[in-house]
Amino acid sequence: MKRIVFSVVAAAVVAGVVASMVPASGQPDGEAAPIYGIKLPPGYRDWKLISVAHEEGNLNDLRAVLGNDVAIKAYRDGKLPFPDGTIIARLAWTYVPSEENNKVFGRTQSFVAGTPTNVQFMVKDSKKYAETGGWGYAQFKDGKPDGKADLTTCFPCHEPVKARDFIFTRYAP
Amino acid sequence: MKRIVFSVVAAAVVAGVVASMVPASGQPDGEAAPIYGIKLPPGYRDWKLISVAHEEGNLNDLRAVLGNDVAIKAYRDGKLPFPDGTIIARLAWTYVPSEENNKVFGRTQSFVAGTPTNVQFMVKDSKKYAETGGWGYAQFKDGKPDGKADLTTCFPCHEPVKARDFIFTRYAP
Repeated sequence: MKRIVFSVVAAAVVAGVVASMVPASGQPDGEAAPIYGIKLPPGYRDWKLISVAHEEGNLNDLRAVLGNDVAIKAYRDGKLPFPDGTIIARLAWTYVPSEENNKVFGRTQSFVAGTPTNVQFMVKDSKKYAETGGWGYAQFKDGKPDGKADLTTCFPCHEPVKARDFIFTRYAP
Repeated sequence: MKRIVFSVVAAAVVAGVVASMVPASGQPDGEAAPIYGIKLPPGYRDWKLISVAHEEGNLNDLRAVLGNDVAIKAYRDGKLPFPDGTIIARLAWTYVPSEENNKVFGRTQSFVAGTPTNVQFMVKDSKKYAETGGWGYAQFKDGKPDGKADLTTCFPCHEPVKARDFIFTRYAP
């Protein structure tokens, strides 16, 4: 039942016909992100974990990559390319030292998630997004479309991993 | 329906009466961890994300904290203490620089999850674990009970956050 619900949601998001909904993240259904016309997928915060990462430099964040049920199944089956309906979400938070944890460990070693930075999505629709490897890209900040300029750079940056269907993140078992 | 299934599973795990099951992680139901008698909770790899972190030092890992449905609801409701049946999972992987990602960013900045190190659990049962703040602790490596010596140190280390029901990790929105 859960899988069916997710598939229907994914298909609706891809088709861009999601009606008024209030997802688990608490954000009402809103404006579509530019270029690829992707709306914030309802309930993405409940999706299963693919992996985690830390980016230093300007980003300086801790991040989690989540996938809808289509994505998780494809990852676990080792299936490439990802099927239409796949949605991959990258959440990120500021990289913050934890004084509380460090006190317990007796040294500076612990970094935790601070405030959310933005959330990015890759949505697979091999026909709609044929010109960008079958993937549409979106970025949201505080539930609203964000990063219009960045979106044009998504596809070229992902081209080096074309052999893995343009997805950098590997599944963390 | 999903919530009911999770509650039943949680109750069964707490009671230590889980029969032969093959969880989503692919590990068959096995030996109980020492001291607190906790078995590997079936399907924990499918649980929702609470937060992420990075530990330097000897641990040198990237970690994700997941929760069963009881845990997630309590976190989102801001409910303390956590109700009986709460299970919190800490997964961790080696902290690995990603050459692939760095090549795209044009500098060394990206760290990703490598091989899994171990998985730790906190199981809430206010009666069974009354002497340790209502929480039982367990650690598994490759699906098998692990870290017997470490388990005795769990409760004293968590005492500084008694006001948050002994849980360090805050929910990352």
